[in-house]
Amino acid sequence: MTPEEEKVLEANKNFYRALQALSIEEMESVWLQEEWVRCLHPGWEFLEGWEAVHESWQQIFENTTFMRLTVGVQAVRVEKGIAWVCCTEKISSASEGRFETAFAQATNIFKLYNGRWLLVHHHASHLPAPITNPAAEIVQ
Amino acid sequence: MTPEEEKVLEANKNFYRALQALSIEEMESVWLQEEWVRCLHPGWEFLEGWEAVHESWQQIFENTTFMRLTVGVQAVRVEKGIAWVCCTEKISSASEGRFETAFAQATNIFKLYNGRWLLVHHHASHLPAPITNPAAEIVQ
Repeated sequence: MTPEEEKVLEANKNFYRALQALSIEEMESVWLQEEWVRCLHPGWEFLEGWEAVHESWQQIFENTTFMRLTVGVQAVRVEKGIAWVCCTEKISSASEGRFETAFAQATNIFKLYNGRWLLVHHHASHLPAPITNPAAEIVQ
Repeated sequence: MTPEEEKVLEANKNFYRALQALSIEEMESVWLQEEWVRCLHPGWEFLEGWEAVHESWQQIFENTTFMRLTVGVQAVRVEKGIAWVCCTEKISSASEGRFETAFAQATNIFKLYNGRWLLVHHHASHLPAPITNPAAEIVQ
């Protein structure tokens, strides 16, 4: 693991920390706030631009009372100024009185901006079956 | 649309041409054949390395007798030496006597290598509902 890969994984972890904390402020700090960033939530329409992405997180956070995440990083790749991470997500959440557990697979792309790796693309898709990944870790 | 964005979209189109043609030779020519490339087929396990990715395409092609694709490009982003494309896929295919139509959302990452944009990451996920995208085009 190179120091740069570690920094990217730290940025990835901060994204999931923001998600688990249901914190829009933390979410704002991990994304690059540009009109070309994109987000593909499972089952949602494709979102482009920070405004739409930001609104989607607000909506998710407003409709969720509790979230617990287990993230298993599968791979990280760092190129010049751009990096991406593949990981699995186990998401236990409560909203409107219902408790759910879902499994997803994600591709997160980061851009190095003023010395910080910021999220510019998040694509998460549902996985049909539970993940048994020994490398999984709890984000906290 | 910049000339570089056009080149990336051409590489993206070549990937879908290879897929529709069920041609392993064409698929070999659009990917960067490195041990760190990755592929997330809908519902499959995460694949890492050209060998595993190549084998997956062979398996898909061997089990498919016909494929017809409609690809709707939603967005392209080019950074220094790395680019990615978001697109929707409508896949009509026949395998083992069954005819199916599926809808998917993809993130494809390309790396500029010796003047050519080569695929290094493919993440496709099922979409629950049909896509009505006027920008959709038939790959042929």
